[in-house]
Amino acid sequence: MQLYFAPLACSLATRIVFYDAEAQADYIQVDLKQKRLPNGEDFREINPLGQVPVLRLDDGSLLRENTAILQYVGECFPNAELMPGVGAEQARVRQWLGFIGTELHKGIYVPLLDPRASDAAKEYARSHLSSRMDLLETHLWENKFLVKRFTVADAYLVTILNWSSACNIDLKPWGVVSDYFARVRQRPSVTRAMTEEFALYQQERQRANA
Amino acid sequence: MQLYFAPLACSLATRIVFYDAEAQADYIQVDLKQKRLPNGEDFREINPLGQVPVLRLDDGSLLRENTAILQYVGECFPNAELMPGVGAEQARVRQWLGFIGTELHKGIYVPLLDPRASDAAKEYARSHLSSRMDLLETHLWENKFLVKRFTVADAYLVTILNWSSACNIDLKPWGVVSDYFARVRQRPSVTRAMTEEFALYQQERQRANA
Repeated sequence: MQLYFAPLACSLATRIVFYDAEAQADYIQVDLKQKRLPNGEDFREINPLGQVPVLRLDDGSLLRENTAILQYVGECFPNAELMPGVGAEQARVRQWLGFIGTELHKGIYVPLLDPRASDAAKEYARSHLSSRMDLLETHLWENKFLVKRFTVADAYLVTILNWSSACNIDLKPWGVVSDYFARVRQRPSVTRAMTEEFALYQQERQRANA
Repeated sequence: MQLYFAPLACSLATRIVFYDAEAQADYIQVDLKQKRLPNGEDFREINPLGQVPVLRLDDGSLLRENTAILQYVGECFPNAELMPGVGAEQARVRQWLGFIGTELHKGIYVPLLDPRASDAAKEYARSHLSSRMDLLETHLWENKFLVKRFTVADAYLVTILNWSSACNIDLKPWGVVSDYFARVRQRPSVTRAMTEEFALYQQERQRANA
């Protein structure tokens, strides 16, 4: 499989899942500003919306949308137990994927990170922060992970929480969420993926400033 | 199963799926303004965010998030073929669920429908409309449904498109999307669910105005 990614973007979640499953994949870095691939091709040929992640499956077809990609990749490696295959636990992971994708990622973090969003649009996004973080705080108070074990949903959540400082979200009022974030970052697959993409992110910024 | 719903809210998608599968379910109407159940109980005990849909599974546990509920219900009735169980087709349905949930529902329609959203927040939401509708227009030009047949993703899309007039989204510039919406609304399960919930919606407004 090939993962189209940008450093520290939400595609990081899929890299974490590949690393956690000890699975091989090819990683193709996308210049999101210029919407260009390393070979100069227009990334919008791959995804008209110009967003990562996009996953190229082994049959050559393309799959978009983080929640779809995370379920797909998790299910490709059942021994890693990152995506339950059936039942209530599977439904629960999907519930958290839905929550993270809509309430956190799209509803709050994207407008706060988007330079084209007006202050009023950012304020509207931020108005939803407390209730969403309170929900997480309550849930993680009783649960080490979003479900019983580390899954693709935790890979997604840690990827989004990692943007907090970049958009002036202070997690301190949510001590349990902060502890969760600190703890999950220590997981070897997460540490490795974040460290590698942070280096790529710095290189990208240096090129942009050159 | 029990579906906590509000008339014409996004929970309509799950009702469409139950009807399309000719499956029995209980429907519990939520007063979203007062966050109350018919028996007077606080709906936030069911969902702290006060959102529908919530599905009570047969084991009594609760499942939130439209994309999780639609996959779950679709898989409960495999003979209805509303949610592919494996493979590329399954991944593709999930991709569209992700797109509708994040790009359309949360990214555009929710802010436009939200009386607490400022004009600037609505403007930011609306700035994403063309690119998202263009993507749908291109896809539906070559496809009668989002995948090969009617699935839970179409149930979700038609539910969201149904809000267009309420938030001054004119679908006319996207003729293929308009045709799709008109056609899918004629599907008996969709017509029945929309007709019933429109009547409940009118009753709710009458009570609010009384």
